[in-house]
Amino acid sequence: MNPGEEHGAPSLGHPASSLRNHLTVSNIAMSAAMNRLWLLLTTVLVLSATGLGQGSPLSRAVTTADNRQPAIPWPKQEKAVREKLAAKVKETGKKPNILWIIVDDMGYGDPGCYGGGAAIGAATPNIDRLAKEGLKLTSCYSQHTCTPTRSAILTGRLPVRTGLIRPILAGDKLTSNPWTGEVSMPTLLGDAGYTTLLTGKWHVGEVVGMRPHDIGFDEFYGYYPAEKEISQYVDKRRYPDLVLNPKRLAAFMKVAPSHHLIHGFKGGKTIEVSSVNSLEDMARADQVLADFTKQKIRELGKGDKPFFIEHCFMKVHCDNFANPDLEGISASKYPFKDNVREVDLHVGAFMKVLEEEGLLDNTFVFFASDNGPQMDAWPDAGYTPFRGAKGTTFEGGVRVPGIAYWKGVVKPGRESDDVFDLLDLYSTCAELAGVTDKIPQNLYVDSIDQTSFLFDDEGKSKREVVYMWWGAQFTALRIREYKMHFKVVIPSFPRLYIDMATVQTVGLAPWLFNLYIDPKEQETLGHRRNAWLASIGAVAKAHEATFKKYPPKNVGLND
Amino acid sequence: MNPGEEHGAPSLGHPASSLRNHLTVSNIAMSAAMNRLWLLLTTVLVLSATGLGQGSPLSRAVTTADNRQPAIPWPKQEKAVREKLAAKVKETGKKPNILWIIVDDMGYGDPGCYGGGAAIGAATPNIDRLAKEGLKLTSCYSQHTCTPTRSAILTGRLPVRTGLIRPILAGDKLTSNPWTGEVSMPTLLGDAGYTTLLTGKWHVGEVVGMRPHDIGFDEFYGYYPAEKEISQYVDKRRYPDLVLNPKRLAAFMKVAPSHHLIHGFKGGKTIEVSSVNSLEDMARADQVLADFTKQKIRELGKGDKPFFIEHCFMKVHCDNFANPDLEGISASKYPFKDNVREVDLHVGAFMKVLEEEGLLDNTFVFFASDNGPQMDAWPDAGYTPFRGAKGTTFEGGVRVPGIAYWKGVVKPGRESDDVFDLLDLYSTCAELAGVTDKIPQNLYVDSIDQTSFLFDDEGKSKREVVYMWWGAQFTALRIREYKMHFKVVIPSFPRLYIDMATVQTVGLAPWLFNLYIDPKEQETLGHRRNAWLASIGAVAKAHEATFKKYPPKNVGLND
Repeated sequence: MNPGEEHGAPSLGHPASSLRNHLTVSNIAMSAAMNRLWLLLTTVLVLSATGLGQGSPLSRAVTTADNRQPAIPWPKQEKAVREKLAAKVKETGKKPNILWIIVDDMGYGDPGCYGGGAAIGAATPNIDRLAKEGLKLTSCYSQHTCTPTRSAILTGRLPVRTGLIRPILAGDKLTSNPWTGEVSMPTLLGDAGYTTLLTGKWHVGEVVGMRPHDIGFDEFYGYYPAEKEISQYVDKRRYPDLVLNPKRLAAFMKVAPSHHLIHGFKGGKTIEVSSVNSLEDMARADQVLADFTKQKIRELGKGDKPFFIEHCFMKVHCDNFANPDLEGISASKYPFKDNVREVDLHVGAFMKVLEEEGLLDNTFVFFASDNGPQMDAWPDAGYTPFRGAKGTTFEGGVRVPGIAYWKGVVKPGRESDDVFDLLDLYSTCAELAGVTDKIPQNLYVDSIDQTSFLFDDEGKSKREVVYMWWGAQFTALRIREYKMHFKVVIPSFPRLYIDMATVQTVGLAPWLFNLYIDPKEQETLGHRRNAWLASIGAVAKAHEATFKKYPPKNVGLND
Repeated sequence: MNPGEEHGAPSLGHPASSLRNHLTVSNIAMSAAMNRLWLLLTTVLVLSATGLGQGSPLSRAVTTADNRQPAIPWPKQEKAVREKLAAKVKETGKKPNILWIIVDDMGYGDPGCYGGGAAIGAATPNIDRLAKEGLKLTSCYSQHTCTPTRSAILTGRLPVRTGLIRPILAGDKLTSNPWTGEVSMPTLLGDAGYTTLLTGKWHVGEVVGMRPHDIGFDEFYGYYPAEKEISQYVDKRRYPDLVLNPKRLAAFMKVAPSHHLIHGFKGGKTIEVSSVNSLEDMARADQVLADFTKQKIRELGKGDKPFFIEHCFMKVHCDNFANPDLEGISASKYPFKDNVREVDLHVGAFMKVLEEEGLLDNTFVFFASDNGPQMDAWPDAGYTPFRGAKGTTFEGGVRVPGIAYWKGVVKPGRESDDVFDLLDLYSTCAELAGVTDKIPQNLYVDSIDQTSFLFDDEGKSKREVVYMWWGAQFTALRIREYKMHFKVVIPSFPRLYIDMATVQTVGLAPWLFNLYIDPKEQETLGHRRNAWLASIGAVAKAHEATFKKYPPKNVGLND
C-alpha cells in the first residue's frame, strides 16, 4: 500500500454495501470504485495496523512469497516436527505411506465423535476410534461442493484458480483442461518415488486428459461421476420419466456420464471392468472398491516404494441404497444411515489391514468428507448441527469431519479447533514426501504445510484464514472465531441448497458471526464490529489481490 | 380397556386435531369427546396390539402397578447389577455415596464431549474426562425449566403431579405446600442412613416448609433463587430502572426473593451467612459454594455414614458475570463461556477431592444440566444443536448433558442413546440405598430404577417413553426415535422462548419427528405415520389415565 494514497476520497458510504458487490472473480481487475474502497480500508488499517501478511490488525500471518498463502509462524513446533519426521524416516528407512479416506456428502454431525453416531441412528465406532487414537479437528473446512473440494486437495489451490468451481455435470463441455499447468498431488508424490492410486469416485472430469490416470495417478479403480449420476439410469422409482421411457433413456445416455467401473493406468490404458445395471450393482459398489483398496494396501505395503492411496467412497452421496448384505444394519434403518455404517465398517477394515501388514506406524491417514450433507434427499440424508448444507458457504456446507491418524506420530486423543483447510493436505503431504521444492513457483498456492500442526503434540494451525467461494463468487471468510459473509447463499426452496439456492447481497450491516457464541450463524454481530469490518475487508482484499498477478482460469464452468 | 366399547361412534374426524385440544391437566377428567377419541384409538390398537404396559404396538414396557411408570424388563442385566452392587457394598462395608452435580441452563452442546467445548470457545476438559471415564448419555431429558426439573429429580414425579410446573417467581404466593405428602430424595436417603446436603441453588421455594432443610436435607448451603433474580438487585447496567431508582428498588425488594447465602439445618435453624451486594459477590458465589462442597466431601467422606450431596451451581444461568479471578479464561472471553470454564474447573476439583479421599470407587457421580440454554441473554448464552431452548419441549429445551460416573462400576468410555429421564435419578438412588420399598405407595411415581442401565457394561434403558410437559399442558412425548408434539411451543420474539413463548395447536398432520433422521425437528413425518399417530396417541392416553386415579396437585402455579 502507498501511504500517500491514504487521503483519497472515500465517498462510498458504508464499506459493507460496497464490498458485497464486487467480490466476483470476473471483476477481479480493480475498478476505480474498488480502489476507493481499498483506500478507505487502508485508512483504518494504517491507524491501527500491527498486521503482517494479510494486512489486518487481526492477523499474525506472515507472507513468504507473493504466490504463497500467508501463514502463522510457529518455529518451535516446526523444528520439533521436522526432527520427528526425519527420525521416523530414519527408523523405517522409507517415506511414510499416505492414505486419504474421503466420504461423499457426509455431514459434520454424522460421525459419533462429532455428536452424531448412535444418537442419530447410525453408530460409527471405527471412525470414532480413529478420532480417539488420533487428532479430531473441529474446524476443518472443505469447499461447498464435490468437484471443487476434490480438485482443491489435489492441486493445493482454490477451485476458482483452477476453474473447477462447481461440480462437472452431464453435458458440460469444458473450454480447456483445468489440469493443464497444474502439478497434481499424485504427480508430486509420484516424482518423489510414491506409487499412487485413486480408488472410487473421481468426478473431476472423465474426458481424456482429465482422468485420474491422466493427471498423475499410476492407477485408478472407480467411477468417474457421483452416485446419483449413475443410479438415475436404473432407479425407476425415483426417475420413472427417464427409466421407464426407453427413447428418453437412450437420449439421456448420450449426454450422461459413464456408469462403468473403470480400471485405468498411467499412460492411458483404460478397462471397463463392469457396468451398473441395477440399483443393487450401485449399492454394492463400495464393497468392491473397498476390497480393491484393501488388496492394494497389502500389495503396495510389501513393496519398497511408499504409497499414496486416495480412497473416495461413492457413499453416502444421494440417492442412497443399502448394500443388500448390510440392509438395516443401522438402528435407524434408513439407507443413508445403513451406508454410514457401511462406510464406517470399511474404514475399520482399512485400519485392520494396515495393522495386519505392520503399516500403522508408517502411514499417515486422513479421514474427511468432501462437503456438508446434501439435503434434497431428505429424509434420507446427512446431518449437520450448523446452518446450511452442501452448496452453501454457511458452516453446514463447508465444515466437515476431519481426522488425522498416524500411530506413534499423532498424539492419541488430541482435539483441536484451530482451522484446517482440506486443501492444506497438498502441501502437508508434499512435506511428508520431502518435495515442497517441487510445488510450482509460477502458480499461486493456497495450501499450507500443516505437518507441524498435525504432528506436534500441542501443534497450532499455521492457517489463519479460510476463504469460502461459491462458484466464482467470494462469499465469506473465517478468521479466528469470526465469520464474515459478503454474500449469502439462501435456499429458494426448503432444503434445496445446492440445486435451488440463490446468492443474495448483504445489507448495510455486515453478516458477521462469532462462531464461538453463535455456531449456527443465526444472529449477526452487525454494526457492533465495524472495526472488524474494515480489518476483515482488508484480509479479503489481500486475498483478491492474489488474483491480479496470478489470474484465475475459466474453463467454461464460470458461465 | 373394555373390548365391548370398541364399536363406539368415532366421529371426531382426524385424531390429531382432537388430541391437541384436550391434553391439559385441568381437563383431566375424561370428557365424552375424549372417551370417543379413546375408542377410536383403541379400535386401531385392538387390531394390531402387541403392546403391554403402555397400550401401543410400539411398546415393550410392562406395568407392575397402577402407580408405577411401566418399564422395559431386562432381567439379565438387572440380576447382574444387583449382584454387582451387593458385592460392592460387601467390599466397602458401606452404601455408596451419591454426588449429583447440576449445572444451571447449560445447553446440550456446551460441553466438549457433546460437540461444544473448545469448538465454541470454552474447553471443558474435566467434564469431558468424566464422560471418557464414565457413561455419556446422548438422550438424557430434563424438564423444560428449572423448578420443574429440580423438584422432579427430588420427588421422582413429574412437575404436573406435585404442582411445581414452572419456576417460582418473585411475588408468587402458593396456595399450598407442594412438598406436603411427597417423600423427597433426601428424606428417603436420610432414612436409609445417609447424611444429606444441598449446596448452591435451590429455587423450589424459600418459605418455611419449602426450604431444602425443611424437606429432608440435613444441611443447606446456598441461595434460594436463580442467579438473575439476585443479580438484578445490583446490575445497574442491565436494570438501571431498578438499581438507579432507590424507591423502586426498595419496593422491589419487598417482593423479590432472598439475596442471602443461607446456611440451613434440618429442624429449621437458618443462618444468613452473607449477602450479595455487588456483581462481584455474585460472580464469586460458585467459588464459595464449591469450596463448601469440597470441604463437606472431605468431612463426610471420613465418617461412617454414606453421603448424598446435591451440588447445584448458580452458573451458568443468566445474567453471567465472570469470577474476577477467572475473567477471560475461556478462548471466547464471554462471561458465559468463562463460567462454563469455571464450572468445569469445579467439577475437576470435586473429582480430585473424591480421589484424594479415596472415595472414587464408592461414589456414584451424576452430572447434568437442569434444562436447555436460556437464549434471551444472547450473545452471552449457551448452545444446543437442537431446535428450541429452555422453556420449550423441543429437544433444545429438554435434551441435556447427562454423565454417570462411578469408578469400577460404570464401564469407562460407554455411550448410550437410550433414553434417560433425570427424574429416574430418584428411583435409581433409592435402589442404591436399598430403600425402594420406602417409595410411596399412595402416589404415582414416574421415576424408574435405572441402576441396571447405568451400571451394567452393556445396560439398556428400562425407560421407553419420555413425557414432556409445558406447565400444565402435556405437549410432547418421545418413544424410541419418534417424537410427537401435540402442541408446540413457539417463541413469539426471537430467542425469547421461556419468557415470551406461546403454545400453539397442531394442525391436521401430526408433528411427528424421527429424531434419527431429523434431530433438529425441522420436518414432520406427518401423515406418513398415521399408524404411529394412533399408537403414540394410545401411549399419551395411558399416561393421562394415571392422573385419574392419582390426581395432580395445583399449588397455585397453574393459573
